[in-house]
Amino acid sequence: MPENTPAARVSVLGLGLMGSALASAFLKAGHEVTVWNRSASKTGPLVAQGAKPAGTATEAVEASPLVILCLLTNDNVGELLATLPESLAGRTVVNLTNGTPAQARALSEQVTERGARYVDGGIMAVPQMIAGPHAYVFYSGDEEAYKEHEATLAALGGTRWTGTDPGFAALHDLGLLTGMYGMIIGVVQALALVRTENIRAEEFSGPLVEWIQAMLGIVPGIAQAIDSGEHLTDVSSLAVNQSAFPNFLETFAAQGVSSELFEPFQALLDRSIAEGHAADGLSRLAEMLKAEK
Amino acid sequence: MPENTPAARVSVLGLGLMGSALASAFLKAGHEVTVWNRSASKTGPLVAQGAKPAGTATEAVEASPLVILCLLTNDNVGELLATLPESLAGRTVVNLTNGTPAQARALSEQVTERGARYVDGGIMAVPQMIAGPHAYVFYSGDEEAYKEHEATLAALGGTRWTGTDPGFAALHDLGLLTGMYGMIIGVVQALALVRTENIRAEEFSGPLVEWIQAMLGIVPGIAQAIDSGEHLTDVSSLAVNQSAFPNFLETFAAQGVSSELFEPFQALLDRSIAEGHAADGLSRLAEMLKAEK
Repeated sequence: MPENTPAARVSVLGLGLMGSALASAFLKAGHEVTVWNRSASKTGPLVAQGAKPAGTATEAVEASPLVILCLLTNDNVGELLATLPESLAGRTVVNLTNGTPAQARALSEQVTERGARYVDGGIMAVPQMIAGPHAYVFYSGDEEAYKEHEATLAALGGTRWTGTDPGFAALHDLGLLTGMYGMIIGVVQALALVRTENIRAEEFSGPLVEWIQAMLGIVPGIAQAIDSGEHLTDVSSLAVNQSAFPNFLETFAAQGVSSELFEPFQALLDRSIAEGHAADGLSRLAEMLKAEK
Repeated sequence: MPENTPAARVSVLGLGLMGSALASAFLKAGHEVTVWNRSASKTGPLVAQGAKPAGTATEAVEASPLVILCLLTNDNVGELLATLPESLAGRTVVNLTNGTPAQARALSEQVTERGARYVDGGIMAVPQMIAGPHAYVFYSGDEEAYKEHEATLAALGGTRWTGTDPGFAALHDLGLLTGMYGMIIGVVQALALVRTENIRAEEFSGPLVEWIQAMLGIVPGIAQAIDSGEHLTDVSSLAVNQSAFPNFLETFAAQGVSSELFEPFQALLDRSIAEGHAADGLSRLAEMLKAEK
């Protein structure tokens, strides 16, 4: 626990793998932690670590000014709210349940209408990483409430404020995971490709990771072009990418690997060029995705 | 030039941006370089650096035992071969033209039938990086010829031998670029998403790059599962990914971003689970891509 952080009262509702890791991190930081879970059996290990079990969700909410929600879905959060007293005055509800910006915005309205302050969070870590050096959480919503509790929330990992729109934490969270899923698409396709020959995936994964890492160097330039709207490039134009891409689809076909994950990229390149963007860089594709549906 | 490497005679045919960078790197390493390009105007800067211009492709091939080809496509390589003397005996042809494994295998046959040795290469660098610390080239084909010339080829950057199948250099090259294109798909989609709100792409690109870098840590585990065929996981099952993914597609739709690049991934998850692989990890997807077409 950082030296100047006073012990705080925190309630954690929802004790799945993630919720339990959060409660445990608050306990280790020296806070007074109340826990509740729909099925009470999950409270045992946390009570052994010093947490107070609440008999009902209402008791848990009443026990602390800072209320952390970590359920399976935001539908579950809505159901839980329906069981709580009408007035939640004096509470700050920090919802760390996975969800969409739209869900966070709707829950923020429901919670603030009942007199509480709402902060949404997006956890950038798996449960095992909580409180470790690489974990951090995006927050958005009620800034005053966030600032008041930031030192306590820091027990979970780094804190990153994204703005007063309650949907922004989820938007940042989903944005990073979108980037990750793209990487996964590339890795799965690449490993499927080399495994069609007598090449070990483990041997190939070293150069593969190293190469993707190196190529991440192009991302700031793409971002800058998107912000400025200046998409012309003399490095890697859409025309150059379009002419290279059939080699990939041909090779997937020749090696017996489905190209289903990559065909839409070729189609997007083709459409961008048909609309007159041949000399633009890859940044143009982000515009195309926004303009079209 | 590394201390014990004797000066060699090298001919470089094809002086686009990449071919010119290759010829220049050989010159700087102290080799005796002959250059040829279909339109002779490209030879000027290299002659100024000490290269000998050849009047014809045949003259260029006859000038050196080591012949580097770097044309726009392998179709161009085929056309060039048609202009050369029937016997290419005594030459090692190193084809660094971008192409597919199938093209490399076909060219290897054509070249070896004419008495020369064939090595194919895949350059993992842009022209500006040639001879720099991060450039390297995958090689495959005639191993004896490769070993004989490896010290000379090292002037271009690192040398990585991939096997005697002449298609393997291209396969490794395309495999790495496949991984990169997946990363690009993710980055473009993520930046399109956050730009629907008042979030600067440049500000978001820092956390995005950092997150993808961190998540590359899962790649060796995926590769190991593919090699072993043991796809069961207790970390991130396909079921968990399938249940998370609708949040992404919903959010893309709500924010007005096309989900065309990500829909096939949802479909692949769904199909994998329908076939009974819900408890498997992401590694299973590589198998699905090989099994289906």
